[in-house]
Amino acid sequence: MSRPTIAGVARAAGVSVASVSRVLNGLPATVEMVERVQRAVEQLGYVPDARARSLKVGRTFQLTLAVADVGNPVYVTMMRAVEEVVSAAGYRLVVTTTGPDVVDEVALVRGMARGYADGLVISPLRVDDDLIKSIRECDVPVVVAGNVPASAGVDTIRANSPKGMLLAVEHLLQKGRRRIAFVNGPVDTVPGAARAKGFAEAMKANGLRSVAEVEAIDFTFAAGREAARELLSGLPRGASGRPDAVIAANDLLAVGLMHELAADGLEVPKDVAVVGMDDSELAEQSFPPLTSVNLGSAERGRRAAELLLARIEDDTRTPRRIVVQPTLSVRRSTP
Amino acid sequence: MSRPTIAGVARAAGVSVASVSRVLNGLPATVEMVERVQRAVEQLGYVPDARARSLKVGRTFQLTLAVADVGNPVYVTMMRAVEEVVSAAGYRLVVTTTGPDVVDEVALVRGMARGYADGLVISPLRVDDDLIKSIRECDVPVVVAGNVPASAGVDTIRANSPKGMLLAVEHLLQKGRRRIAFVNGPVDTVPGAARAKGFAEAMKANGLRSVAEVEAIDFTFAAGREAARELLSGLPRGASGRPDAVIAANDLLAVGLMHELAADGLEVPKDVAVVGMDDSELAEQSFPPLTSVNLGSAERGRRAAELLLARIEDDTRTPRRIVVQPTLSVRRSTP
Repeated sequence: MSRPTIAGVARAAGVSVASVSRVLNGLPATVEMVERVQRAVEQLGYVPDARARSLKVGRTFQLTLAVADVGNPVYVTMMRAVEEVVSAAGYRLVVTTTGPDVVDEVALVRGMARGYADGLVISPLRVDDDLIKSIRECDVPVVVAGNVPASAGVDTIRANSPKGMLLAVEHLLQKGRRRIAFVNGPVDTVPGAARAKGFAEAMKANGLRSVAEVEAIDFTFAAGREAARELLSGLPRGASGRPDAVIAANDLLAVGLMHELAADGLEVPKDVAVVGMDDSELAEQSFPPLTSVNLGSAERGRRAAELLLARIEDDTRTPRRIVVQPTLSVRRSTP
Repeated sequence: MSRPTIAGVARAAGVSVASVSRVLNGLPATVEMVERVQRAVEQLGYVPDARARSLKVGRTFQLTLAVADVGNPVYVTMMRAVEEVVSAAGYRLVVTTTGPDVVDEVALVRGMARGYADGLVISPLRVDDDLIKSIRECDVPVVVAGNVPASAGVDTIRANSPKGMLLAVEHLLQKGRRRIAFVNGPVDTVPGAARAKGFAEAMKANGLRSVAEVEAIDFTFAAGREAARELLSGLPRGASGRPDAVIAANDLLAVGLMHELAADGLEVPKDVAVVGMDDSELAEQSFPPLTSVNLGSAERGRRAAELLLARIEDDTRTPRRIVVQPTLSVRRSTP
């Protein structure tokens, strides 16, 4: 039989891992809770690991989720999912914004040493060696919701945006659209680079060439409008020069694009079909409701939270690398 | 001359208050920074107050913003404003969700004792005596962005939604709309109660009676759609029984309503004008773009942050109660 873990104690006591931690660390708990946990500890012969215990004494029961922009609805979906998992385990989730710059991501990870949270899920927009180094050296467990090299040796959960692009292109083809344009976000970001590559591959795999491609300066609504104006003004006059479909690298860019199409008197989806990515709450709220590639942000959030809780429990686990597969949510912005 | 404060030291040294705190507390700083601060301390004869100092030794340089639902775009606006102010002062902002229940708000405030943040801005959806008690007893400074009684003795910043309602009603009247309906959120919440009262007063002041009123079960898009279906199905057949304008208690409810109007074949603003409240990012993103009462969420965020920083600096200040006045952002959902 393997050495009993705190999770085993929690199962035997019929309480959460966080409750067991609370009791073992002398934090407030009901008499009944204390008795149940102590019975389970004795029954299993559980001995807290000294190093793990020293880590746990300073527990804040607070976990941090760090995202580039808390105003982007894709992060709201992820946040709700992370929160559901961690709050069931007795933790409070706090969310913080790093902004788009890697130096600020690094500063955040280094700052975790101050001990105001027990763990971190970070979804970095840009990744460099400094960031990976800071994650490896971080005093608290870190899970990356994004793409870092396997050599970094950290738990990661990522999306499969090339597969998502393929779903978008094939859906448009099925609907008879072949003149496809692309509005990407900045290609020097992790998602921007992945989506550029995915779009090129998906078009090639279907024997298509893109009608036009533009790069927005950020993954925001305002940047989407600006990029769409650039796209539309660069096209030859008349319907023959126009795309009959546009894929946008996220929902905010797609909604910005739809506003510019309307300003040009073009109807969605009759004249131009639009596909977004992220399948955020905004996709449902936009008008017409937006067909969008669901890159599994809820599932990524859920699994990132589970990995983080597991790593807090046992920091010696082998790092996991999980890829969540996309689906397509079809709404009225495509025919 | 009054006793020198840490703010005075910061001004004399030409650095931020947070930088002065860092130096005085022996946290990492450049040699130049340390010298500038020490010079200013000597020059002014600054002596740290013992109680304030003991509070400051454990500083985390982290501040918390607690909102009911981080997915509501009005809080995104507020959050961006709070963050701008506190990050300029050297603090990191973390955001946490309390949900709509007052017990969870109380749990959050009580949990601040754990010392993982130096202060709290809370925007409570529901307020009761327990919440006020927990705020008064909280170990760290608290600022309320919302409406609590003056007797609570805490710094508060609030909106003036009755005045906002008046702006909405008078704008619709100017545009020739007199058959006005109202979609509110739950009236047992602070904003729901204020908006119900404000709507009734604004209509009365203009000699109008509302065509219909419904109460959504939450301030969300889904609840807005449901309430709008209830509103529309309860109306007599034909244009004469229909409102020619609807005011919604926030932008999410307004956008939900616009989807249901479209589903009924009604055009905004031709058949029905729509006014939202909050003037969130969603108002600009919705289609047609939404006329919305700006209740000053950015200014409220900014001023809440400034009050919190001032209170961290000097906990003996007399509590301030600030009311931010509304404006109307006119967009295409009204004629």
